[in-house]
Amino acid sequence: MAVVQYAPFASLVDPGFWHKLCEKKLDEYGLDDSARHINGFYTNGNAAGIAPFITVDHSAFASEWMPTRRSFAANGVLYITNTIDKFKEMDKKALLAAEGNKLWEDIKTGTVLQRPEKLCPFVLLTFADLKKYHFYYWFAFPALKFPDKPASFTETPIPLHQKLSGSELRCLLSAYDTFQEGQECFSGFFLVKQNGEGFILDSFANIDRVLQSSDKVMVGVCDPSSAAGYPGWPVRNLVSFLSYRYNSHLKSVTVLCIRDRTQDSVRDFGNSLVFSVELAHQEESALAGTPECVGWEKNERQKMGPRMVNLISSMDPTRLAESAVDLNLKLMRWRLLPDLQLEKIAATKCLVLGSGTLGCNVARLLMGWGMRHITMVDNSKVSYSNPVRQSLFTFEHCLDGGQPKAQAAASSLKTIFPGMNSSGISLSIPMPGHTITDSMLQQTKEDVKRLEDLIEAHDAVFLLMDTRESRWLPSLISASKKKIVINAALGFDTFLVLRHGIKTDQPPPDAAEQVKMSCIPGCQLGCYFCNDVVAPGNSTRDRTLDQQCTVTRPGLSMVASALAVELLVSILQHPLGAEAPADTSANDDHFVVDSECSLGVVPHQIRGFLSRFHQILPASQAFSMCTACCPLVLEKYRTENFDFLLKAFNEVGYLENITGLAAMQDATLDDEVWGLSDDDDLSSVDMETS
Amino acid sequence: MAVVQYAPFASLVDPGFWHKLCEKKLDEYGLDDSARHINGFYTNGNAAGIAPFITVDHSAFASEWMPTRRSFAANGVLYITNTIDKFKEMDKKALLAAEGNKLWEDIKTGTVLQRPEKLCPFVLLTFADLKKYHFYYWFAFPALKFPDKPASFTETPIPLHQKLSGSELRCLLSAYDTFQEGQECFSGFFLVKQNGEGFILDSFANIDRVLQSSDKVMVGVCDPSSAAGYPGWPVRNLVSFLSYRYNSHLKSVTVLCIRDRTQDSVRDFGNSLVFSVELAHQEESALAGTPECVGWEKNERQKMGPRMVNLISSMDPTRLAESAVDLNLKLMRWRLLPDLQLEKIAATKCLVLGSGTLGCNVARLLMGWGMRHITMVDNSKVSYSNPVRQSLFTFEHCLDGGQPKAQAAASSLKTIFPGMNSSGISLSIPMPGHTITDSMLQQTKEDVKRLEDLIEAHDAVFLLMDTRESRWLPSLISASKKKIVINAALGFDTFLVLRHGIKTDQPPPDAAEQVKMSCIPGCQLGCYFCNDVVAPGNSTRDRTLDQQCTVTRPGLSMVASALAVELLVSILQHPLGAEAPADTSANDDHFVVDSECSLGVVPHQIRGFLSRFHQILPASQAFSMCTACCPLVLEKYRTENFDFLLKAFNEVGYLENITGLAAMQDATLDDEVWGLSDDDDLSSVDMETS
Repeated sequence: MAVVQYAPFASLVDPGFWHKLCEKKLDEYGLDDSARHINGFYTNGNAAGIAPFITVDHSAFASEWMPTRRSFAANGVLYITNTIDKFKEMDKKALLAAEGNKLWEDIKTGTVLQRPEKLCPFVLLTFADLKKYHFYYWFAFPALKFPDKPASFTETPIPLHQKLSGSELRCLLSAYDTFQEGQECFSGFFLVKQNGEGFILDSFANIDRVLQSSDKVMVGVCDPSSAAGYPGWPVRNLVSFLSYRYNSHLKSVTVLCIRDRTQDSVRDFGNSLVFSVELAHQEESALAGTPECVGWEKNERQKMGPRMVNLISSMDPTRLAESAVDLNLKLMRWRLLPDLQLEKIAATKCLVLGSGTLGCNVARLLMGWGMRHITMVDNSKVSYSNPVRQSLFTFEHCLDGGQPKAQAAASSLKTIFPGMNSSGISLSIPMPGHTITDSMLQQTKEDVKRLEDLIEAHDAVFLLMDTRESRWLPSLISASKKKIVINAALGFDTFLVLRHGIKTDQPPPDAAEQVKMSCIPGCQLGCYFCNDVVAPGNSTRDRTLDQQCTVTRPGLSMVASALAVELLVSILQHPLGAEAPADTSANDDHFVVDSECSLGVVPHQIRGFLSRFHQILPASQAFSMCTACCPLVLEKYRTENFDFLLKAFNEVGYLENITGLAAMQDATLDDEVWGLSDDDDLSSVDMETS
Repeated sequence: MAVVQYAPFASLVDPGFWHKLCEKKLDEYGLDDSARHINGFYTNGNAAGIAPFITVDHSAFASEWMPTRRSFAANGVLYITNTIDKFKEMDKKALLAAEGNKLWEDIKTGTVLQRPEKLCPFVLLTFADLKKYHFYYWFAFPALKFPDKPASFTETPIPLHQKLSGSELRCLLSAYDTFQEGQECFSGFFLVKQNGEGFILDSFANIDRVLQSSDKVMVGVCDPSSAAGYPGWPVRNLVSFLSYRYNSHLKSVTVLCIRDRTQDSVRDFGNSLVFSVELAHQEESALAGTPECVGWEKNERQKMGPRMVNLISSMDPTRLAESAVDLNLKLMRWRLLPDLQLEKIAATKCLVLGSGTLGCNVARLLMGWGMRHITMVDNSKVSYSNPVRQSLFTFEHCLDGGQPKAQAAASSLKTIFPGMNSSGISLSIPMPGHTITDSMLQQTKEDVKRLEDLIEAHDAVFLLMDTRESRWLPSLISASKKKIVINAALGFDTFLVLRHGIKTDQPPPDAAEQVKMSCIPGCQLGCYFCNDVVAPGNSTRDRTLDQQCTVTRPGLSMVASALAVELLVSILQHPLGAEAPADTSANDDHFVVDSECSLGVVPHQIRGFLSRFHQILPASQAFSMCTACCPLVLEKYRTENFDFLLKAFNEVGYLENITGLAAMQDATLDDEVWGLSDDDDLSSVDMETS
């Protein structure tokens, strides 16, 4: 008699599978390369000439999964290696043997009766180069070489339309549909009893009882094969199962391979196959070990070997960029920082005031950290000296008088990454000491309102302007709205990066308590103006060219910008957020214990000295007479609003008078006080030396 | 008799003047705003209807200057203020009075006889906004109100063709030409004697003698005026001079205003004017003080006020960018670093190996420091995850499989600043541990040669690749060619920036001597491999995705890149260059004394720890068994060249064996040694703690 041959499965991978795989690997599996269950499916409706295949798609990873109607579950296992070398070096024989072993156990224990999809196992060994979107993979469809000797037909396959009449076929179709509709999901294995012209279908789980009850029982299989003489791969493990379980009391079994084609819009059962297969007697010894397992798929060159698919060209470049830019960030969580809250960072809306060297670099770094919502603000145009230091501008931006800086910067962010939600706003920030004339009043009112709305709409505000006094109004508004403020200022070879304290409504601790504190709580930290004993005034008047242009060592801006952004991210990662107490370099003990923030210390200020490649981390308390953040100023702003601001802009000495700074100045020896103030942008009480 | 009136000068500023002014201000004057001599000139060939003007052009600043033929010198003084406010606030009356005073002195002392151009003085008061190319300026053409009462004609002006016959005119023309040819430069003032039909011309310096000798003497003036009835402005100060010097013994003087027009290609002297002017007797009292001075020019609105010219639209944008990008650098020399050798920096040719996050940022900063010759090298293409962190790439660079990184980076540098001499080279650097098969041999040879040529052609080499072993070959070649090498490497939140020592041929000091040294000389500093006790090998094998991608905190690259570039610039500014001894943060004394480098300390290494916002400056000696820079390795490379390299690439343990590292490893307790080495990119002997 002829030996039974089986049409092997091929694999069909929907691109959706690879996308989902990327997600899973990046966000969930990380470096964990243990085997994972995946879902596959096949159909028995292939038209003539179509080889059988198992499909995996985006649903492969679903835990509560059912194949769609008229599809049948295949039971997959995914091995995803961390390196291409691991992929190459994987012992394929051992892997397949192990899967064969599982299958053999499922057959021996009868597990397949309840879970017949286990007769259709598959293995996917893969390495995903998530950076290049290259996927190396190799499928196996494990099948046991059992019995040792290939099974033979006792009745060779004939198409069902040769065996059954037209009305019998219709009865079978009807019974099949009724049976499948009654299942939770379409079942690839079942039992068929002919009863006169009619057919009764029963669950595969009842096979022991049903096979004993009647001669006329056929084992039904939804057959992915469309070949005239051969059943598909599921029948191979079915025959192994039947041989193992019944070879001692059954000589042969009849198999009905249902092929549920649709031809010219009409369902056609006629090409289903019927055949009988011999269940040869097996020696006890043959049952002892695990049978050999075969099934690695050949690749497109008909060799035993893996395949590679490069998805990059088939993907939408914008979406490709979208996931690629998050790649480096997500990889941080694999090994280094499993607790990193990327979502918190990504959701932070940033307002960048000033689009010069600092603003451009800060925006780039925010983008690098995954921030997507960035608003750039500036009031000037790109000039020819800008692009070599202001990293979002090119020569083109300078032509024809120069594009507005904020808009140019915002649009550059989009050319770098189209997924950015960036916008640019030309806005002049009203400043103390820059008198508002009557003709400017309406515009100034609108500008203030605009700035208030902008700060309200963002979570973090960067102060990166080139004058001291332009930082006053946004400092005040941000303090009032309790927003995170990061301030960065450059000298020639020194810089200051500082976070503003966010005031709570609790009274500050008294002096005795303060002494006991090892570090200043976030709510008591000073702002940029807290160290000043003079109010901000017009500093732009009478500046020479080297004072107008920020003359700094070119490297300085990158260092300060980087630290400003890293400081913000550290704040966002700290469990207390902006209320995180200030770490200082003075407190060496503090460095020994782990910081509460997974990224490290969260200082109040970072002062850098490029001439010595040196940085210190001072911290200072909020000042009770601060012109930008003391309770009295905040209260005046809250109650008098624009009227208060207008006085601050126009009246020399107004802020000093209301805060009490003026009185304090009078009471202090001028020499001592003035030595600290005025031109030195970086002056502050330095905790390190205290 | 009619009062003499004079056609005043207008100013004509050639754009070349402003360009030259920018140069002078930036490169030479700096903040020094003292008055400076400038050259102007005028002609006497204006066609009818053209008002007289004094031109200043690029030659205005020349010290050895002569007006071109048929032009006449005007004696200018330039006041260039440092701020627009200073320009506005300048006391114009006082300024003009001061200039009038000088003129009066020159008249009284007779200086004008030797330097008749001093009778045509002019003042240019200006403020140059070098950033915007806006020039605010105001000319004055000082003229003395002397005598008090305006001079009157004794003979009213008539055109020369009414006074002289055709042949007489020709004789005069001929005598004029002969006289002027004999002068060093064309003289605007001279003496004319009629002698029958002929004319004899004499130098203005001889006026005392000549006026006494004959009645028929005329004072000749090259007259910029083309008005029928009025001489030009030079005649005004001439009359003052003549009145002062001769009013006690001459009643009047005849003035011949030569107008040297060309009409229909023929020279036309006929419109020259002749008139006589009364020299009224002056009281002694009138001669005592300085006469009032007038002469501020009206602006285009016919008001007494300054003009502004915006040159930005008329300039070639590329050349505009050219000078603008140097602006910030040059301004450093005004106040902060007068000794800064910008030319030395600009002339340094930089080779940037690796065009990733570090390479892009480093190239930007080199450009910021004024480097113009930058060669980028890489062997990969721009991928979608790159642009958000690699600051020379955009989304466009990723499309269609990605552009080659080095070329894309080099061309981006040009889009930022068209004056860049940047090029990009796709090159794979052969590496130890990455076996060279026979089929790769020819290509590898070419790659090595290419790299050798590139290093030879540059002054400084940046090692910014993403593997340890790719740094070996360029380290070796650079050591052999004694080039400056700056190395930067990133961990997750740590970085290393390091300069390689440049070996001299002197033997290293013995141990006793070393102990005495307060810091390590540049020639004895280690290279990147000097701290290793294992040779570089294939580290890319079997790396997981998070190890392949440089998973770092985004800010880290900007910090490391900035410090790498600032370290190079500091080396270039140090009097010993690459042989500068290593400053360390351990040596606190050293920080107190001024560094020999105007930019500050020049460390060997900068190690940064972003989690603590902290940096240290260790230094370490070259290692006698270093696989990249020890004398034995350099000698083998010199003598065996590619054969040696091939062994290093292919033979495991080869470098360890020849350097003696292998023997040393055998002799050392494994535990102790291996604890230090291998994966930790940042391991080194740390001077700070020693």
